[in-house]
Amino acid sequence: MQFFSAGGIDLPAAYVEIICVGNELLIGKTLNTNAHWLARKITSLGLSVKRITVVRDDLDEISSAIKESIQRKPAFIITTGGLGPTFDDKTLEGVAKALNRDLEENAEALEMIRKKYERYVAEGRMERFEMTPYRLKMARLPRGAKPLPNPVGTAPGVLIEYEGVSLVMLPGVPQEMMAIFEEQLEPLLRKISGNLTFYEASLEVRGVPESELAPVIEEIMRDNPYVYIKSHPKISEKTHYIELHFSTTSDDQSVAKQRIERAILQISEIIRDKGGRIRAIQI
Amino acid sequence: MQFFSAGGIDLPAAYVEIICVGNELLIGKTLNTNAHWLARKITSLGLSVKRITVVRDDLDEISSAIKESIQRKPAFIITTGGLGPTFDDKTLEGVAKALNRDLEENAEALEMIRKKYERYVAEGRMERFEMTPYRLKMARLPRGAKPLPNPVGTAPGVLIEYEGVSLVMLPGVPQEMMAIFEEQLEPLLRKISGNLTFYEASLEVRGVPESELAPVIEEIMRDNPYVYIKSHPKISEKTHYIELHFSTTSDDQSVAKQRIERAILQISEIIRDKGGRIRAIQI
Repeated sequence: MQFFSAGGIDLPAAYVEIICVGNELLIGKTLNTNAHWLARKITSLGLSVKRITVVRDDLDEISSAIKESIQRKPAFIITTGGLGPTFDDKTLEGVAKALNRDLEENAEALEMIRKKYERYVAEGRMERFEMTPYRLKMARLPRGAKPLPNPVGTAPGVLIEYEGVSLVMLPGVPQEMMAIFEEQLEPLLRKISGNLTFYEASLEVRGVPESELAPVIEEIMRDNPYVYIKSHPKISEKTHYIELHFSTTSDDQSVAKQRIERAILQISEIIRDKGGRIRAIQI
Repeated sequence: MQFFSAGGIDLPAAYVEIICVGNELLIGKTLNTNAHWLARKITSLGLSVKRITVVRDDLDEISSAIKESIQRKPAFIITTGGLGPTFDDKTLEGVAKALNRDLEENAEALEMIRKKYERYVAEGRMERFEMTPYRLKMARLPRGAKPLPNPVGTAPGVLIEYEGVSLVMLPGVPQEMMAIFEEQLEPLLRKISGNLTFYEASLEVRGVPESELAPVIEEIMRDNPYVYIKSHPKISEKTHYIELHFSTTSDDQSVAKQRIERAILQISEIIRDKGGRIRAIQI
């Protein structure tokens, strides 16, 4: 695993971009818990999310976002949403346009979809099943794509390798997205990142303003080059109240713990000297 | 107000892009409630959010995202995060780089910051105040920028007009972001959108699979060209369960209501004919 340095932090070189498709995210109807869940998962697997983009259910918007992302050469592009049977499920069409590949009926995907509807009929959720154009649509994948079984819903996920970038299209329904990620994608990502894992801890600091902590954070980060420290001010009527978040990435848990504990010990001493109060909220 | 047509829906022409800056959003530590709140607010004011981008606390990433967004010519670019005193608060530097403008000490911003710290001393939150480089940093704005008073925290918001695009930089602390938006930005956006407002309603539909609703949605949208209908499948063990979301934008509340009610009436009839069960969850 190669590392590159970005402002005092060593990041794993294999990074991921997330593209979320859906008007509901842009009108503020739906909170983007999908991006949050994916970012946390991917980070915990030792990879790094470099960008999250949210676009409308619009062919050109989806296609532009995919093209722009490919130019940045991430190891993975993961999309959520827009795989279903309705007219505004346009993600696969957008990907096909971005890659300049035709959409074509994928036999494996069609079989997955057919079996799913047959099960719905067997379970009494549907009276009978016929393959309508709307159902067929979910089996029309960009040329060269591989469908990923959806254990929860109907539309399969989709994997495409393109010029060194793995594009993975997941549904927008959270339970379907999570299930396909965990069953199909997680093993893949784990293989790439080796044993690399992300470690973090937080301290609550009260009584010292962020502007006074700023030089302290810089000093401690210089002395602990593998630990990233970020201050998150919280609102309090009575006093300055800041969460300090410590993180590191390592393939050795004890090394990671040591790194973070050392940084916490050092910074705590300085904060106490300044009259600040400290509480560990998560280590 | 001009409209343009995008896949059967008439959208207000004045659109907004949101750029959120912060590693915490990309490691999945923080759920992006800021983007959600802004998207809902902006939509309710009759404008349209076209894209949300989330980038790391990295100068080049911020600057690229800003440049790319400017090229798409939104009326507004609203950023959140990265305005504070620490080394990784890099939003203003990123904007300056994107616009090719120098950062310079802004007298008005400096006065806002000085007054804030003097108040902290008066309130007993700080013993004494001196203008350190870390505090001064929050007053170093791109040339030509206007600081926006922050009634909750220390770092002012920032407004820059650039080639027909209004760039607005807001803090990442939600209460600060919301306060500056509501006091400074909302009147501006309201003026642009006229009396245009966004209206929405939702129906819960059970017992009909989404693939069977798909052609019905298309038919009703053709017959109700100002109403956008989107289906959101939900997970249910026993039956197909879908939320149908109806929305329209109008400067006349009664027109908007009539449009949505007509579409709901029409679709409900067809769904009941298919044996589906309907419940209004929000109108």
